[in-house]
Amino acid sequence: MANTDVCAVSIFVNPTQFSAGEDLSRYPRPLKDDLGLLADEGVHAVFTPTPEAMYPPDFGTSVVPPPVARLWEGQFRPTHFSGVATVVLKLFQILPADKAFFGQKDFQQWRVIQRATADLNVPTEVIGCPIVRDADGLALSSRNMYLAPAERRRALAISASLMQVRQAFAGGERVVSALESVLHDGLSSLDRIDYAVIVDAATLEPISQISTPAVALVAGYVGSTRLIDNQLLGSK
Amino acid sequence: MANTDVCAVSIFVNPTQFSAGEDLSRYPRPLKDDLGLLADEGVHAVFTPTPEAMYPPDFGTSVVPPPVARLWEGQFRPTHFSGVATVVLKLFQILPADKAFFGQKDFQQWRVIQRATADLNVPTEVIGCPIVRDADGLALSSRNMYLAPAERRRALAISASLMQVRQAFAGGERVVSALESVLHDGLSSLDRIDYAVIVDAATLEPISQISTPAVALVAGYVGSTRLIDNQLLGSK
Repeated sequence: MANTDVCAVSIFVNPTQFSAGEDLSRYPRPLKDDLGLLADEGVHAVFTPTPEAMYPPDFGTSVVPPPVARLWEGQFRPTHFSGVATVVLKLFQILPADKAFFGQKDFQQWRVIQRATADLNVPTEVIGCPIVRDADGLALSSRNMYLAPAERRRALAISASLMQVRQAFAGGERVVSALESVLHDGLSSLDRIDYAVIVDAATLEPISQISTPAVALVAGYVGSTRLIDNQLLGSK
Repeated sequence: MANTDVCAVSIFVNPTQFSAGEDLSRYPRPLKDDLGLLADEGVHAVFTPTPEAMYPPDFGTSVVPPPVARLWEGQFRPTHFSGVATVVLKLFQILPADKAFFGQKDFQQWRVIQRATADLNVPTEVIGCPIVRDADGLALSSRNMYLAPAERRRALAISASLMQVRQAFAGGERVVSALESVLHDGLSSLDRIDYAVIVDAATLEPISQISTPAVALVAGYVGSTRLIDNQLLGSK
């Protein structure tokens, strides 16, 4: 809000960024709570379209996201970023904002949107916002609601292991395999790891040594809940 | 010009809508002549980007066109409409015009752009302009420059056969196979026909009987020059 004169927020659980078998139908939609929080912040407008308004029956165009969408979330959720890029492009046409703010918890999403809007000459500036964490370190996410108390305690391994990587990096470690060992050791209590890697912060391509900004990316499961988190290493 | 207060024109031979083996390198680029014509018309601005400005080295996003792109040009030039939809979307971001004017000679292109901009909520109104023909009936096209005089005479079969279809339609014929026979008979002097069909004017899908607006679409070769033309049957 401090960044803009007028602030509008969109709330839309976008069906095209979910695959069959994912949690679209049960994804949290606490609209009333969200509207209360936004009113408290003094937000000027909220856009809450129906899926039918965004995707009428004759809808048929989509966006192929840029190469930064290829790995990580792009491998585990193959249609995800096409859905993201398409809906964000639509939103940027519906409300041609000067600036748009995206949470850096979805780090790859932020990069995909930055690149796609630049490629397509969309005049909206795409700004990443620091990850917001609960007091125990868990990155805020709609999906945290799925976690039973014992699961939530186990989920803290993600932010804790990312913090250990950050400390190792701050201590001078630049070898990616060494930093990834720290990360994997910290994640051993997860039920499944989709990926836990340290990659170039701009391209998200693998690296062996950190010489330019990097990011540690984690996606894993606690029970049936899939969580993602990340930690920048070096300034973004 | 009569339609707008301010009129800008883009001149760009877009590499991404040509396939390997097509005529990108020799496609006519009479920029000086074009600028003279536009000055005579009182056009306010001309945008003539380089390919490198539109597609910098890290460019990597594209648009998947809607189903109306599937048949006809979409079959014979499989990557064509993705290139078209992507560059037009970029142009509409660079200059967010209220109205954009497209020649109806490229009938399917016009439909693809109408549908893609609607799907992506681009606020530019996409308006089709009637085909402009030389006195002999040949639809104006940059590629007409390729035609030797004898080829040009043979090329007149395209507009002539479309006119015969229009007359048969005006005379009450509504059976597509009968109208397509008229069309094919008139095109027998072409060196190759990619397609010569009568289809639904909105969806471009095949029909057997004309009950709503239809369009006759032709793509064929005279020598090595590929030409397209069309004729609406019933109002658009």
